[in-house]
Amino acid sequence: MSSIVVVGSLAFDSIETPFGKAGKVLGGSANYFSLAASYFAPVRCISVVGEDYPREQLDLFRQRQIDTSGIKLEKGNTFHWEGRYGYDLNTAHTLATRLNVFENFAPEVPESYRDSEFVFLGNILPALQGQVLSQIRHPKFVAIDTMNFWIEGQKQALIEVIKRCNCLIINEAEVRQLTESYNIVQAAKVVRSWGPKILVVKRGEYGAILFDGDEMFGMPGLPLAEVKDPTGAGDTFAGGFMGYLASLGTKFASSRYQLRKALVYGCTMASFTVQDFGFKELIGLNREKIDQRYHRFVDLTTFHLD
Amino acid sequence: MSSIVVVGSLAFDSIETPFGKAGKVLGGSANYFSLAASYFAPVRCISVVGEDYPREQLDLFRQRQIDTSGIKLEKGNTFHWEGRYGYDLNTAHTLATRLNVFENFAPEVPESYRDSEFVFLGNILPALQGQVLSQIRHPKFVAIDTMNFWIEGQKQALIEVIKRCNCLIINEAEVRQLTESYNIVQAAKVVRSWGPKILVVKRGEYGAILFDGDEMFGMPGLPLAEVKDPTGAGDTFAGGFMGYLASLGTKFASSRYQLRKALVYGCTMASFTVQDFGFKELIGLNREKIDQRYHRFVDLTTFHLD
Repeated sequence: MSSIVVVGSLAFDSIETPFGKAGKVLGGSANYFSLAASYFAPVRCISVVGEDYPREQLDLFRQRQIDTSGIKLEKGNTFHWEGRYGYDLNTAHTLATRLNVFENFAPEVPESYRDSEFVFLGNILPALQGQVLSQIRHPKFVAIDTMNFWIEGQKQALIEVIKRCNCLIINEAEVRQLTESYNIVQAAKVVRSWGPKILVVKRGEYGAILFDGDEMFGMPGLPLAEVKDPTGAGDTFAGGFMGYLASLGTKFASSRYQLRKALVYGCTMASFTVQDFGFKELIGLNREKIDQRYHRFVDLTTFHLD
Repeated sequence: MSSIVVVGSLAFDSIETPFGKAGKVLGGSANYFSLAASYFAPVRCISVVGEDYPREQLDLFRQRQIDTSGIKLEKGNTFHWEGRYGYDLNTAHTLATRLNVFENFAPEVPESYRDSEFVFLGNILPALQGQVLSQIRHPKFVAIDTMNFWIEGQKQALIEVIKRCNCLIINEAEVRQLTESYNIVQAAKVVRSWGPKILVVKRGEYGAILFDGDEMFGMPGLPLAEVKDPTGAGDTFAGGFMGYLASLGTKFASSRYQLRKALVYGCTMASFTVQDFGFKELIGLNREKIDQRYHRFVDLTTFHLD
């Protein structure tokens, strides 16, 4: 089993959906990613929090084999995001972004993290993603996420970091924007021309699709009778995806079925997150419960049998 | 092998997409459905055309084992639809609908059609769908499609016909509108409470999803490097779906894997239609080419192997 370094945000989220409202719940890409990945492999987290961030959440991380030595505690308030969703839960509308302690964040990778083989560069300023990557000695598999904000303001810097990664994990609307290609097969070619062999496109309730060279693999989302809040689903997905790959340890070979199963584990983990506000549903899972849910995806898509 | 009765439109379409324009091509639900289904089973078509409808198209039907004795030729012009798509090819914008000979259409089922076991009630006035169904002696499997126009203006009449069917095949936005339920699992329950055991939801490039009692089956669309025009994809899907089921003949049992394979054949046929304007891509296929494309769906979604 290999360990995974993740850099991303630890935050408070205030969320409104047609199905309810959450005042100020814990969130941020590093929270969702780390919790999801921790069911598969040891996680080493790099982030920053303010004085208002609850200590118990860091204790929870430590209980779940998530290393917190790369999480800085700074004076001031924790990053705070406010957002709203309509019935179309695939698109978030940002109401307010308070960077707070994130404004002057300069990620430092602790010495004890630097031998990690798997790296997930969560959605932050591209230059910082690059700084983290530079501090890892011999990364074996690096995945990166981003968002429209950086595509609009930091496109060249972003592409420079993407070039150094094996895999881009990104929302469908954002890969179209980034590659200036509406067609997703064409978009995958553009990404490949930059460097990453693998592109994973997140499609919300429509699941995800993977491009690996000329290979394609698609998985619909699991239809659920109740979906309350999609916040964090994408980072949870990445956690399941990277977690499964890291769990393969020395058997990891970036092979066809390894990547495909990793994608299904990503969808599996994300299907828990959307069932409630925050990451409540990611607490108290175990590999058995996860594999039961995974088998619902097997069942959802099996047809070529007689 | 059982035969299929279809009622629907034969039409001219004028279409604009970001990828091109088609002045006045042959279209209509009965054209797409019949051509797709004819690769699997004999088709018996019920429709009406005007004097401007090309004879050669009816000859083409006859060459492809599509019975045209239920197609009326009336004085006046053929039904004409004008539409436009943006980059989001999942939503058609109607610019003009000229019903022409369709205005006074009263479908009559020829005596030679009345013993058919499979029935597809294409998207027309619900009362006419009901009239066709009443003229079939012992239908074994009846599927129905509809659209927002009838949901808005004829909802009660529409639900009355749906009650008499085994299967509703419908676009995602429209099943939400029809059932007044945004959540698709809930929508499936509403449809089931009306009568049909089976609901097939068409999701454009995201493929399709099938609900059969508590069973669910999902299939993503096949990502294609070039998609020119989605017009007719839904009817083509229905043709592949119903065609495969009818091809089972006495083996048809509405079973789990039969329905699942039928859905994949539906997606398979639709993937041809979207590659060009009109139904050009549906001409000159054969079962071998179709099965090759079907196997691309197997390949797209297989993951649970070691």
